Amino acid sequence: MQGPAAQDAELLERADAGDQRALARVITLVEEGGERGDELLRLLRPRTGRAAVVGVTGAPGSGKSTLTDALIARWREEGRSVAVVAIDPSSPFTGGAILGDRIRMTRWYADESVFIRSLATRGHLGGLSAATLRVAAVLDAAGFDVVVIETVGVGQSEVDVADAADTTVVVLTPAAGDAVQAFKAGIMEVGDVFCVNKSDLPGAERVRREVRSALDLAPRREGAWRPPIVSTVAATGEGVPDLSKRIADHRQHLSAHGLLEEARRRRVRAEVLALLGAQLRRAWEARQERAVDDILAGRSTPSAEVRSLWAPPA
Amino acid sequence: MQGPAAQDAELLERADAGDQRALARVITLVEEGGERGDELLRLLRPRTGRAAVVGVTGAPGSGKSTLTDALIARWREEGRSVAVVAIDPSSPFTGGAILGDRIRMTRWYADESVFIRSLATRGHLGGLSAATLRVAAVLDAAGFDVVVIETVGVGQSEVDVADAADTTVVVLTPAAGDAVQAFKAGIMEVGDVFCVNKSDLPGAERVRREVRSALDLAPRREGAWRPPIVSTVAATGEGVPDLSKRIADHRQHLSAHGLLEEARRRRVRAEVLALLGAQLRRAWEARQERAVDDILAGRSTPSAEVRSLWAPPA
Repeated sequence: MQGPAAQDAELLERADAGDQRALARVITLVEEGGERGDELLRLLRPRTGRAAVVGVTGAPGSGKSTLTDALIARWREEGRSVAVVAIDPSSPFTGGAILGDRIRMTRWYADESVFIRSLATRGHLGGLSAATLRVAAVLDAAGFDVVVIETVGVGQSEVDVADAADTTVVVLTPAAGDAVQAFKAGIMEVGDVFCVNKSDLPGAERVRREVRSALDLAPRREGAWRPPIVSTVAATGEGVPDLSKRIADHRQHLSAHGLLEEARRRRVRAEVLALLGAQLRRAWEARQERAVDDILAGRSTPSAEVRSLWAPPA
Repeated sequence: MQGPAAQDAELLERADAGDQRALARVITLVEEGGERGDELLRLLRPRTGRAAVVGVTGAPGSGKSTLTDALIARWREEGRSVAVVAIDPSSPFTGGAILGDRIRMTRWYADESVFIRSLATRGHLGGLSAATLRVAAVLDAAGFDVVVIETVGVGQSEVDVADAADTTVVVLTPAAGDAVQAFKAGIMEVGDVFCVNKSDLPGAERVRREVRSALDLAPRREGAWRPPIVSTVAATGEGVPDLSKRIADHRQHLSAHGLLEEARRRRVRAEVLALLGAQLRRAWEARQERAVDDILAGRSTPSAEVRSLWAPPA
């Protein structure tokens, strides 16, 4: 009989040898976050840091999925392997079926150098989950040249994806006010590359100008990266080679300035915080009714309840 | 010399007597979250639970601020006092100046029965902050008939506002795909009243139909609230009396079903969690560099780091 450790070593070996079913099994275990998944990821962790981790974010309707699809095609032409973690919110109404557009990605099913995994957020929009970051780490360790984290384009994920990615692509459209709305959403600050998608629609030049003037307002240190603005039509592939090049340029910039390691460390920090948050929420659930009674009666305060739930380590 | 306790008792007395400057001072102290603010809020807490707390959320550009403004006018006609907590993201680029549209609200400056407070989120889009919920509690205790929490319409706040409000108004526009995007954003699930604003634009009837069919898909218990869909043109006030009535109907429904107290308790729970999250993030910052080293080397795991940062209370 094999013990779990031997089993897992074999599983990792098979995944290493390019067995996509073994990789899918490793991902499932790591995503679930139990002890076995933790141990698998601990073994894989030192191998992370080689993939270009690209975050793709933007407002709903900006065409992120189509753009990701076009980028996969381009990267495959360049001979690079690609993994995608796509974050799907599953709705209590529909069980997630509204995101059937992801099915489109099945065109890559037969290509062993493309791996796509959708993670349901199960109604919780708390930014990127620990599971997202764990799965991205496995795909990095598995040797994919590019790992894309594609957010659903709502919720805090729009901002947090910048903690997870080396390079964050913010996707806008020529729709009136898109640039201003991106400002309000706080995503202008996190973009390393801006992409005006659907740029065959009227208004594309205006959005480019708005983004450019907004970026020019920001204080920027000497030698700092100046985010480029790329125009694409994801549906036809127009502009996608340029977008791919700008993403590569940004990674080159990080590498030249010794910043790649910092991006990798940022990802790990985000993973710990996401995990901690989830565990604390569970602990609080057990105490909350009495605490709420006491607070409403003026016998306790939220600060006092926080102190009784958690004390900083000595 | 007065001690702080006597000073604060006097401050509360003046705020009670309708002195808006004293109220503003109480709010500032409570918003800051120090010991003095905690104590003030502890004294006020038993008086909370009388205001109708209304959350207004929706995509950027849906006209939430204009709609809030029109609702204030309507509620004032009905003789009700109104307080608004508006959440403004302040951008590192602009210091928040892009949200100058809030200045419009100065039309209420001379009306002592209207109180408006904008809270900066300082670039952090982590849902509603503890400060937002504390300020809403002070305004409730101060005796305003209606307390509006108006979110910036991005980030997790779109969802969390439902934890803070008795009644959540989801604002949509006739823009193509608005209803589908609201689905993706997870805000269809939290709406108690849907408002199709800018309903003089083409497509309003289609959006109403989309929302209606979406809502009809949801499993709904016998006697449960059926969210109405109201059409408004906030800029002219059209439909706003109807919106006000539907909001009142929803509160009546909560009251008739004994659910108002649950909404008040939900707000307190959200406040504790927001505070806990903020404190833990600070504690983690002190440990994180060594932890990241150990995780990347495969000597530790995120789970182990979480255990050393926090152990569930015995």
